[in-house]
Amino acid sequence: MTQHSEIKEALLFTHRIAQLSKAVWKAVEKDWQQWIKPYDLNINEHHIIWITHHLKGASVSEIAKFGIMHISTAFNFSKKLEERGYIIFSKNENDKRNTYVRLSEKGEELYSNLVETFNKNESSIYQAALPLKELFGKFPTLLELNGMVHTLYGEDFMNITEHSLVNINEEFEEVDGNLKTKKDFNPTRTERILK
Amino acid sequence: MTQHSEIKEALLFTHRIAQLSKAVWKAVEKDWQQWIKPYDLNINEHHIIWITHHLKGASVSEIAKFGIMHISTAFNFSKKLEERGYIIFSKNENDKRNTYVRLSEKGEELYSNLVETFNKNESSIYQAALPLKELFGKFPTLLELNGMVHTLYGEDFMNITEHSLVNINEEFEEVDGNLKTKKDFNPTRTERILK
Repeated sequence: MTQHSEIKEALLFTHRIAQLSKAVWKAVEKDWQQWIKPYDLNINEHHIIWITHHLKGASVSEIAKFGIMHISTAFNFSKKLEERGYIIFSKNENDKRNTYVRLSEKGEELYSNLVETFNKNESSIYQAALPLKELFGKFPTLLELNGMVHTLYGEDFMNITEHSLVNINEEFEEVDGNLKTKKDFNPTRTERILK
Repeated sequence: MTQHSEIKEALLFTHRIAQLSKAVWKAVEKDWQQWIKPYDLNINEHHIIWITHHLKGASVSEIAKFGIMHISTAFNFSKKLEERGYIIFSKNENDKRNTYVRLSEKGEELYSNLVETFNKNESSIYQAALPLKELFGKFPTLLELNGMVHTLYGEDFMNITEHSLVNINEEFEEVDGNLKTKKDFNPTRTERILK
């Protein structure tokens, strides 16, 4: 007979989460690397570009927080992106202690090009979600996982994906199955998302 | 108004999964590193010990598959574990092409010691799941995530966690809130889980 044991349950649960999250993250990593390969970027660099774009400028510590990377990783790869002309470092008027970064015009172009070349048929994660979409009529909502990440990382972290959603709806339209930057979209943005 | 677009939905879904799986995996990694720190192991090494134990011997390609690591990673860290006396390399009688590894007595001891020192209060993932357990009366089942990983990695991959569950129930009992190897448990195992 199986003895009920809180500690056994805890060990098995953490092991199950470890296997599942490693499996999904490794598949995500592979898809992501394929996507950005033509642009000679690594995942951290593209993540920095993505966050800086969607936050309309970000501090290095915000990049570290929302990109789930060490602050030194965020700083070092931001510097590399600056050297390549994608990112501009500046001090914020209201907060002299923090270093802020924003995308240059070339950086914004890179961001848009990557969205425009996104190909859902090359995303194994998207393909793996299709049977669930077929079954339930919508993409997996992953509510339990959302709840756990909310507990671990807090409210702001959860909102970043929602900002991306709103932004991408404003910025892009679907043309012949691909995303294209809207003709009337003005990329000049000065207002930061986070106060 | 929001235009419905399959490609937008796909991009946002993959982005959401990327953020969630990176967030959870990075928390898992941190917990895992803390857990194994006193034993001077890295996560790959402990994952190899875990898999080799639960499969009752494994080929290097099985370790790579179930540990979601490159075959060279699986091989190199197995070699390091062999040098430290935790693992024994051998050729399988029925399959001369593949290299098999099994745990030495010292390796089995390491496996048990680690299970016995598992502390649920130091697992941020377990802590993050507690509010959900409170709410639903059981740990998150993560069915959608299971479905996606099943599609991506197949049946065998899913069964490994279940083997661990069965094994740990056989091998350990809870004593004063910790796991202890059962006194009557005989660690001599020759029968492999995978045929």
